Amino acid sequence: MPQKRKILRGLISIEDLTKQEILLLLKNAKKMKHDQKPRSILKGKILASCFFEPSTRTRLSFEAAMIKLGGNVIGFSDPANTSLAKGESLEDTLKVIEGYADILIFRHPTDGSAKKIREVLHKPIINAGDGMSEHPSQTLTDLFSIQECQDSLEKIHIAMMGDLKHSRTIQSLSLACSLFNMHLYFVSSPSLSPNQPLLDTLKSKAASFSLHHDVEKILNKIDILYLTRLQKERFSEKEYPEVRPLISLQLLKKAKKNLKILHPLPRLEELPKEIDTSPYAYYFQQAENGLFVREALLAWILHA
Amino acid sequence: MPQKRKILRGLISIEDLTKQEILLLLKNAKKMKHDQKPRSILKGKILASCFFEPSTRTRLSFEAAMIKLGGNVIGFSDPANTSLAKGESLEDTLKVIEGYADILIFRHPTDGSAKKIREVLHKPIINAGDGMSEHPSQTLTDLFSIQECQDSLEKIHIAMMGDLKHSRTIQSLSLACSLFNMHLYFVSSPSLSPNQPLLDTLKSKAASFSLHHDVEKILNKIDILYLTRLQKERFSEKEYPEVRPLISLQLLKKAKKNLKILHPLPRLEELPKEIDTSPYAYYFQQAENGLFVREALLAWILHA
Amino acid sequence: MPQKRKILRGLISIEDLTKQEILLLLKNAKKMKHDQKPRSILKGKILASCFFEPSTRTRLSFEAAMIKLGGNVIGFSDPANTSLAKGESLEDTLKVIEGYADILIFRHPTDGSAKKIREVLHKPIINAGDGMSEHPSQTLTDLFSIQECQDSLEKIHIAMMGDLKHSRTIQSLSLACSLFNMHLYFVSSPSLSPNQPLLDTLKSKAASFSLHHDVEKILNKIDILYLTRLQKERFSEKEYPEVRPLISLQLLKKAKKNLKILHPLPRLEELPKEIDTSPYAYYFQQAENGLFVREALLAWILHA
Repeated sequence: MPQKRKILRGLISIEDLTKQEILLLLKNAKKMKHDQKPRSILKGKILASCFFEPSTRTRLSFEAAMIKLGGNVIGFSDPANTSLAKGESLEDTLKVIEGYADILIFRHPTDGSAKKIREVLHKPIINAGDGMSEHPSQTLTDLFSIQECQDSLEKIHIAMMGDLKHSRTIQSLSLACSLFNMHLYFVSSPSLSPNQPLLDTLKSKAASFSLHHDVEKILNKIDILYLTRLQKERFSEKEYPEVRPLISLQLLKKAKKNLKILHPLPRLEELPKEIDTSPYAYYFQQAENGLFVREALLAWILHA
Repeated sequence: MPQKRKILRGLISIEDLTKQEILLLLKNAKKMKHDQKPRSILKGKILASCFFEPSTRTRLSFEAAMIKLGGNVIGFSDPANTSLAKGESLEDTLKVIEGYADILIFRHPTDGSAKKIREVLHKPIINAGDGMSEHPSQTLTDLFSIQECQDSLEKIHIAMMGDLKHSRTIQSLSLACSLFNMHLYFVSSPSLSPNQPLLDTLKSKAASFSLHHDVEKILNKIDILYLTRLQKERFSEKEYPEVRPLISLQLLKKAKKNLKILHPLPRLEELPKEIDTSPYAYYFQQAENGLFVREALLAWILHA
Repeated sequence: MPQKRKILRGLISIEDLTKQEILLLLKNAKKMKHDQKPRSILKGKILASCFFEPSTRTRLSFEAAMIKLGGNVIGFSDPANTSLAKGESLEDTLKVIEGYADILIFRHPTDGSAKKIREVLHKPIINAGDGMSEHPSQTLTDLFSIQECQDSLEKIHIAMMGDLKHSRTIQSLSLACSLFNMHLYFVSSPSLSPNQPLLDTLKSKAASFSLHHDVEKILNKIDILYLTRLQKERFSEKEYPEVRPLISLQLLKKAKKNLKILHPLPRLEELPKEIDTSPYAYYFQQAENGLFVREALLAWILHA
């Protein structure tokens, strides 16, 4: 088993993990999926679920994962009901909570907050999304789903489409893809293309990528289309229809036969429901896979 | 044991159940009440508690029931903290959640939403109240309580009083009563009498019922007085005192000796506290019975 | 073991406990701390966590304590999602909830509400803070922490500083200190000194106390400095800086070597972060101790 050096302090960035570690986690997640019986390896352990932003998938799948391994959950999904409402600092709140738990799951709107918080804690913490920074357990879920539907992670051609500039999901997934000889097609309006620091990092890792405006032109090349929604509130009413991604069954006629569409969800109109019953749709399987990946992750960090 | 054909997909309407199935559930609930030891028959199972409207009784009794059977709970009681806040459709939210749970409990303000949602899910779902449509686990609780306090469900004379037009509780209970040769007295102001489709359905089932304005005149005939509150926000300030139901200890002097008052709670001033210590009060026992009925229901749906 | 006469109905005031009972609880809490393995003595028991006011420490430590003893938790942390939102009385809400649980934890903004509620309930209830009245499980945590860091509860010199007038923490702790031959230094601006009824009660118990305005003058006498935050919203912008407590590393140069600072948290600027790494800081240990004390308390009330 790869060394636990870093992960024992939790998982803040997908870059905390080596390629070997990622592959081991995916292998363990596969075991969880293929034998879904309840386990008791985390009996008596407590997960503190600390969500300072709304969440359905991430929070509930982490909580279900903990329960399926025999553990328990405390926490909150609305910071208005915590002592933060009384003016307490985020640091103090989490330092207190770690006294009552074995591991913390943390989501917060501030970029980089997970990393900062880890520095003051002694218990492991998993970043469940901090601002526009990272969302590593989503990335593990994405990689698991790619491997599952394409039988491999190597040499995959993957297009990422949507708001590539502000998405923590895109940020984390791009960094991971660079480990697996994938080719990345970034598809967006110019104003939403990936930020320069990410592109620089990818270059320094010798990642293979290209920038595009029109998904139609590359549909015959890609194995995975990874769509993300736009946060409407970032755009003016005039701007939104010009920059938003959009696919359709009609468009998908030009796709490779093995194409699968992933989406971290929630989706808005960029991914019409007509696609749900097509052979390309893989996003609900992807959402479900989050459970098994998070089981593997919790087991690895907490199970002696 | 009656066939599980329908109930395996959950419980949306009290009409999903045959009379035989209802009687079996009540029998099992009685066992749960008489031997309240914790059970482990649902060990490892997860209930997703999805409340899109406020709830105390229904949510907490379902959650306690699941725990008492050895299972666990994930969920939310405030949709503001889920991805619905990001614009996700109700369908998508629940399709994702069913990937993390073995059964869903669903409350929502929209009439008929539970039935619609069941069509897109693969896991069983229990309707915990959808708009003015139905609330079948409340009805099972009501029937259990009637049977418990009157020693029978057959040939009971039951008055329903309050807002009979908009209440999902009245809707579901009336349909069930028609199975048991009860006589139904609907007592309300004319503007709040049961809606015509319900009356038509009851007629088609050859149910015995009559409409009344004054509870005083039938108090010497009824075994059960089923009161419901009015939702104040439906009425103008002038209208409210004219249409609201109201009983009192004074009035109850005219009642049959065996009369028991039921109320789905919460109550407002229609049911004064002075009645709590009278022999007629049975609504707190009724609320507690919700636990045992929901234990029986979860066990039946989930226990192999 | 001391008689359970009173505590079986819960814990509303620290005065519900005799000195012997307190010492036994602290001894049991020490056992919980020194052997933190998960226990199963409350297997199948349900705690209802009823928080009508924000809380982090108290709610999460009670819930974690219940889980560590093998029990389970239902409840709410936002009364907006309960039937209170529909106009239900507090009494009705809690009478219903007690049907689904073995013990209730109750926090509410109204002074004296816990005592009033206990009168209508049959299950034990623990007051987790009711208005300006009491917060007894916090006091047990404070006493545990004093005993732990000073090796004794007897003859301790303790200063209490901050808003001594409105704090339920101060109220409960002062009453407890009077049992242990402590000397109490109340340090505050005149407008925030303890209310007369508390001082009268302390006198009637022959407690040793004195009132002060300047903490600097007594720093060389005290073993414990118990700080509390001010609720900013109680004060005008002009008044706040005049009445707020404040300590600093500079000031602490005058302290006794064995001085430890306690604070119920959350803290605001009265307790600067520079003190966190000094040998005087003991408030994060104190927060963690809340878990063990609450384990001992739940075990004592619920474990046959």
